Amino acid sequence: MSSRHLQLGCTFRYSSLAPTAAVFQVGPVDQPRATLRDVSWSVTGDLPLHHYRDLYGNPCTRLTLPTGVTTLTYAAKAEVPDALDDIDEDAPETPPTELPDDVLVYTLASRFCQPDVLGGQAWKRFGHLPPGYRRVLAIRQFVHEWLTYTTGSTIATATSVDVFTTGRGVCRDFAHLMITFCRALNIPARYVHGYMPIMDVPRVEAVMDFHAWTQVWLDGRWWDFDARWNAPRKGRVVVGVGRDAADVAMVTTYGAPWLQLMTVTCEEIQP
Amino acid sequence: MSSRHLQLGCTFRYSSLAPTAAVFQVGPVDQPRATLRDVSWSVTGDLPLHHYRDLYGNPCTRLTLPTGVTTLTYAAKAEVPDALDDIDEDAPETPPTELPDDVLVYTLASRFCQPDVLGGQAWKRFGHLPPGYRRVLAIRQFVHEWLTYTTGSTIATATSVDVFTTGRGVCRDFAHLMITFCRALNIPARYVHGYMPIMDVPRVEAVMDFHAWTQVWLDGRWWDFDARWNAPRKGRVVVGVGRDAADVAMVTTYGAPWLQLMTVTCEEIQP
Amino acid sequence: MSSRHLQLGCTFRYSSLAPTAAVFQVGPVDQPRATLRDVSWSVTGDLPLHHYRDLYGNPCTRLTLPTGVTTLTYAAKAEVPDALDDIDEDAPETPPTELPDDVLVYTLASRFCQPDVLGGQAWKRFGHLPPGYRRVLAIRQFVHEWLTYTTGSTIATATSVDVFTTGRGVCRDFAHLMITFCRALNIPARYVHGYMPIMDVPRVEAVMDFHAWTQVWLDGRWWDFDARWNAPRKGRVVVGVGRDAADVAMVTTYGAPWLQLMTVTCEEIQP
Amino acid sequence: MSSRHLQLGCTFRYSSLAPTAAVFQVGPVDQPRATLRDVSWSVTGDLPLHHYRDLYGNPCTRLTLPTGVTTLTYAAKAEVPDALDDIDEDAPETPPTELPDDVLVYTLASRFCQPDVLGGQAWKRFGHLPPGYRRVLAIRQFVHEWLTYTTGSTIATATSVDVFTTGRGVCRDFAHLMITFCRALNIPARYVHGYMPIMDVPRVEAVMDFHAWTQVWLDGRWWDFDARWNAPRKGRVVVGVGRDAADVAMVTTYGAPWLQLMTVTCEEIQP
Repeated sequence: MSSRHLQLGCTFRYSSLAPTAAVFQVGPVDQPRATLRDVSWSVTGDLPLHHYRDLYGNPCTRLTLPTGVTTLTYAAKAEVPDALDDIDEDAPETPPTELPDDVLVYTLASRFCQPDVLGGQAWKRFGHLPPGYRRVLAIRQFVHEWLTYTTGSTIATATSVDVFTTGRGVCRDFAHLMITFCRALNIPARYVHGYMPIMDVPRVEAVMDFHAWTQVWLDGRWWDFDARWNAPRKGRVVVGVGRDAADVAMVTTYGAPWLQLMTVTCEEIQP
Repeated sequence: MSSRHLQLGCTFRYSSLAPTAAVFQVGPVDQPRATLRDVSWSVTGDLPLHHYRDLYGNPCTRLTLPTGVTTLTYAAKAEVPDALDDIDEDAPETPPTELPDDVLVYTLASRFCQPDVLGGQAWKRFGHLPPGYRRVLAIRQFVHEWLTYTTGSTIATATSVDVFTTGRGVCRDFAHLMITFCRALNIPARYVHGYMPIMDVPRVEAVMDFHAWTQVWLDGRWWDFDARWNAPRKGRVVVGVGRDAADVAMVTTYGAPWLQLMTVTCEEIQP
Repeated sequence: MSSRHLQLGCTFRYSSLAPTAAVFQVGPVDQPRATLRDVSWSVTGDLPLHHYRDLYGNPCTRLTLPTGVTTLTYAAKAEVPDALDDIDEDAPETPPTELPDDVLVYTLASRFCQPDVLGGQAWKRFGHLPPGYRRVLAIRQFVHEWLTYTTGSTIATATSVDVFTTGRGVCRDFAHLMITFCRALNIPARYVHGYMPIMDVPRVEAVMDFHAWTQVWLDGRWWDFDARWNAPRKGRVVVGVGRDAADVAMVTTYGAPWLQLMTVTCEEIQP
Repeated sequence: MSSRHLQLGCTFRYSSLAPTAAVFQVGPVDQPRATLRDVSWSVTGDLPLHHYRDLYGNPCTRLTLPTGVTTLTYAAKAEVPDALDDIDEDAPETPPTELPDDVLVYTLASRFCQPDVLGGQAWKRFGHLPPGYRRVLAIRQFVHEWLTYTTGSTIATATSVDVFTTGRGVCRDFAHLMITFCRALNIPARYVHGYMPIMDVPRVEAVMDFHAWTQVWLDGRWWDFDARWNAPRKGRVVVGVGRDAADVAMVTTYGAPWLQLMTVTCEEIQP
């Protein structure tokens, strides 16, 4: 399969009044559909960075922001297949009795995804559909139509119930609502945060940002579903997966440093 | 240190209309303060049981409930120290910059614990107190006084915000609210579910049940805090730990079998 | 127009530990489509009853429940037209600039009806429809399909947002959700509580109870809409109207007497 | 009693894309403690104003904002007593059995005040206190300490439950929370919106605005309580009263005109 090449990365500039612990989830690692190279981290004052894996196996980077201004930049090149997300409309659901042990956690309620509250909606809308990939497509379609993408529409504590009610959200909310419906039907679903280029699609966004979408477990593997775009895409590079956005934050700070600047890049380049 | 001995266990009887996947978290394993022996599992029809560890390392037991009535019984003996929960009122908090990587997850928001919502309350009440074990005691005392223990007062979806509002809860709610305040202050805290005997305390409860409490990370280790009882106790046997009750359910079923009977035992015996 | 005749009424039996103020809204008065006669009130010990009108003009009856058991019975005959609810599918909406002063209050948010929260949903679903009676029918149809009638599904504090989320409710919830959408579109809507016979419809309910529905202001008058039944009905007898169920409670008690018994009657009789 | 004199008023400038109905509640009328004179209304283009009273007897002013920019100015002089709010610490509560019929509505739940949810808190904190004015003072003191006055802390849909949880609010939230606790105890309480000068108090506010406070029914009359300031004040001029801020909005518009400018004046003048 032919490949394409991305330049990706981000810069964060924080101003701190006191030393502040911070964890970044911005640097992907090699994965089935993306190979990384020329990875570089740079940080003001050459502060020590500590790289580790979290509970879900996601690569994380810790540092202590000193008093004053600190700028951290991550950059890498990624080689990705020149192909859309995998699709198999005939992929069956795996009954709960057959799910792998380590997948079960993705059937449970979490901070932003409350299948225990929206279960009635899920069963009323999707409970009668034949199980399988196409049912998950129906969920994706529904969420895509239900929510109107609205920049700035949600606050950090907004849950899937909140956005179901208001009908507005950003990409994380599309992911949360889709996850919630899947879990209510006992279909494992998880939250994915990563880079996604505008590649071979009409250039609809002025400002590039990180993206969030959903992975659903069907027929023995995870499949990408993107309720915000409601179509397969090319070039996803996963940074982290988890139960919802509470698990996979770009940056977690223990304190309240001022974010002065944040830029994100993910563009196609020549190899 | 001298020991004491417990007989513990539980029985669940379910009636299912269709084969139903179920996961039980009822069988503890050896732990720093409890040694298990004479462990037995029995289940109607000698159904196969599958034992595994979840994301947090908790022992879990899976089976498929067949159509009809299934009874599962777990029983074991536990040797526990004849000693109250460890206490060190001078134990310091660990600043976030020094926390172990794998403890960080217990500072985040989760399904039932929303430090992102109750942060203002936490800082107003406890933010000015000197960091350390005594501050956590102040939180325990506050939660103990804030909530009135009320059987049947909460529904399965009640969060720490809900019980903070109503002022009523059961042991899981005491644990959730205490966890929430700790996390808001950047103190790692987790939910513990297990067996706890009525041992050397006035016999206040007519019916024995599972119990839930809180563990807080201070000075390089986890400490038990029990906001429901607001005092150290003897004989805790941990079954599972997690971010909150969503992670550590006694039983998770994928379907809606009818729970006909549930009994729990945890009594002192002669060795 | 030919008439039909109803025997209606109710009995409440309370047990009080202390004298308790109580207000009953159970006795209708003459209205455009119902004439009352043979009205009787009876109460244990011939306690004094005080009849008055509330803020909305509804007939209310106050008494003080003494310590012990008190039984109150209301009974009356009503003559109602042998005709279904009025319908005019061509009735136009009245623009807010033309609404009567005293109708404006029914465009505002209230305890159980939050057009300020569900406004996005209302405009997305109904904003593009031509204004008028048929748009209100579309709302009625939507609410009827959205909510599954489920006895015991809601708690006393459940709002239109709550039942929109769960998809389940009883008649008051159907009324609240319909009111909410209308108000979000600047269409005045109010809550009605009253008696409704099972008359000329298949006898679908085993137990008779009070009923709640919606009135909507169109073309200079109020029209009945019943989202629970989603069809015109015969024989409605209005007891009270208000912004929502908080305004129009069958019984409000200032204290917590034990309701031992409640029966409601509304049956067709020969004149 | 000697008098003092205020110049009060406000200006609103709206830009509308279409003719928009609007209701203003900004013009007080004579009341026990304030006499109005030199009242003037001016509006762009000399648009017709329609004055009426709402359900609660509040003076309201309707107009239709035409397409384009409209400026409305209200101004008046008020003579007020040179005296602090009335106080009688020995005033008794009136038992619900003795409350006037038309006061009962102020014991019920409303859009922003949910005594049905916060009842447990109210009874736990204030239920044991002797009934009367001093108990209401204890509520005022509690609310004053519980909420931190925080400009911009609440959104328009924030209820008393929401601000109880976050611990932050503006003057309307202080009023709502105090009302909620009173009603939970069966003490009638209502929301007041009006003008209040900075008179004989340290000048703590840079920008003058409307103010909201609470009136509580004790001993046969309404008394002013101001949980935001937690002290008696001089010079209140009531514009409107109601069950909560949903009833008493400065401006209600049926559409979404752009508020370009709003200024409020309430200053002492020489007679």
